[in-house]
Amino acid sequence: MKLLRIGAPGEEVPAVRGEDGRVFALSGLTGDVDGAFLASDGVQRARAALAAGELPEVDATGLRVGAPVARPGKVVCVGLNYRDHAEETGAAIPARPVVFMKDPATVVGPYDEVLIPRGSVKTDWEVELAVVIGRQARYLADPTDAVDCIAGYTISNDVSEREFQLEYSAQWDLGKSCETFNPMGPWLVTADEVGDPQALGLRLAVNGEPRQDGNTKNMIFDIAHLVWYLSQYMVLNPGDVINTGTPAGVALGLPGTPYLREGDAVELSIDGLGTQRQTFRNA
Amino acid sequence: MKLLRIGAPGEEVPAVRGEDGRVFALSGLTGDVDGAFLASDGVQRARAALAAGELPEVDATGLRVGAPVARPGKVVCVGLNYRDHAEETGAAIPARPVVFMKDPATVVGPYDEVLIPRGSVKTDWEVELAVVIGRQARYLADPTDAVDCIAGYTISNDVSEREFQLEYSAQWDLGKSCETFNPMGPWLVTADEVGDPQALGLRLAVNGEPRQDGNTKNMIFDIAHLVWYLSQYMVLNPGDVINTGTPAGVALGLPGTPYLREGDAVELSIDGLGTQRQTFRNA
Repeated sequence: MKLLRIGAPGEEVPAVRGEDGRVFALSGLTGDVDGAFLASDGVQRARAALAAGELPEVDATGLRVGAPVARPGKVVCVGLNYRDHAEETGAAIPARPVVFMKDPATVVGPYDEVLIPRGSVKTDWEVELAVVIGRQARYLADPTDAVDCIAGYTISNDVSEREFQLEYSAQWDLGKSCETFNPMGPWLVTADEVGDPQALGLRLAVNGEPRQDGNTKNMIFDIAHLVWYLSQYMVLNPGDVINTGTPAGVALGLPGTPYLREGDAVELSIDGLGTQRQTFRNA
Repeated sequence: MKLLRIGAPGEEVPAVRGEDGRVFALSGLTGDVDGAFLASDGVQRARAALAAGELPEVDATGLRVGAPVARPGKVVCVGLNYRDHAEETGAAIPARPVVFMKDPATVVGPYDEVLIPRGSVKTDWEVELAVVIGRQARYLADPTDAVDCIAGYTISNDVSEREFQLEYSAQWDLGKSCETFNPMGPWLVTADEVGDPQALGLRLAVNGEPRQDGNTKNMIFDIAHLVWYLSQYMVLNPGDVINTGTPAGVALGLPGTPYLREGDAVELSIDGLGTQRQTFRNA
């Protein structure tokens, strides 16, 4: 099942997309797709209502698609989690997950404009598999427990300003937290529909030029390990998002490849999770 | 004026503390002290209602005090912002603010128990002046513009697990985001009442032993600079919190000083902002 949020920024209404592409309103069931909805068996309730034909169809033509989860409590990011990306950036293969955070307010819709920060000359792209937490994860005993805590998956563009991230201090969050730097969506695809999250192709193109073409099978730390690992150090709550790292092919790792400029179009897709497309504009 | 939130976790009600220490309910004015309240001239409305005698008095005796702001959208932290603390930790004086983040879900009340994470042997304290944003700050032209964006100040204990922070990867957020790691409060003291934020003594004691005794005059980057600087790279929204760094005297910087153990009591105070006290327990 695919959950989504449609409407103007801040006015999105929750919806579900059927297998035939038709869209149905979830407004009778919940005010939003958020942590409270996910924590209260929202996915199961939406599925039952959809199957029972209880949801009114929505004409979504021309409507903006928002991020599929409202107001994540936090956006946890994992760095250098693909062997090829660690190599291209000149970093060692990490012994433990490298964990940092993005400002949750950076989350925007999958087709929204992304703003290149003022003064930026190194705005870069990163296609990532994003995990949406559905049940609290706290000191999980084993990575096999992680599956019960995952509501589903979506696409994140973990947009990064490399000068702010790497040259201004040793801490990365500054270059990861600029306005609009986390396009997310188009859908929250439930875990049952995604199947094996370690067998998904990820692709990203800039102005039609392929730049990233990876597969989640090449993660250094897999999804179950990441959720288990993070749960030893922080509490993952329903509605929280984990961006699980990017494969090779970012501008930082491709000498001679230009960083993003006003007017550039970036297209991202992950198997089964749909496609994003953003145009970049100067802030 | 001092804003506060009283009641059980998740059920706090907004209140204001008069100069004589009496507490008055703000529930008729707002559902909570949060970003929406601060953004809608909540401080001015509360002040007017208090002055007009329109607020009902509350018997706060024995009631828990929560963090003075509900659900910060983000908690931005500044590292190594006191010369003496940078020196004690062996770090160079930074050329730019060192910016990282804490999980906003770590925010708890000023007298709540703090949990020592499982497996932790290096849980440390950090008394900090916390800035609460009252108006959006985005690309401020000048540090002098910062004052208009600050609702007020409170105390943060930026609790830190040094092994998770410094030894597991080069990114600090993991050791800053453990459950209950940001006691905040007791009050949001409005900026007008605080006066010069660069002339405040900060003190912290562990089991009655003085450990930190600093003054905000010794910040490397002052409050106005920090708000202006951050606004060049991220959007600061009403209800967001900035922890502005800690002076010398943390366990990390005091060889032979034990880290925190179950049963330890930590007391923090900042001039004009009141006192916090937490007991530490094993998670």
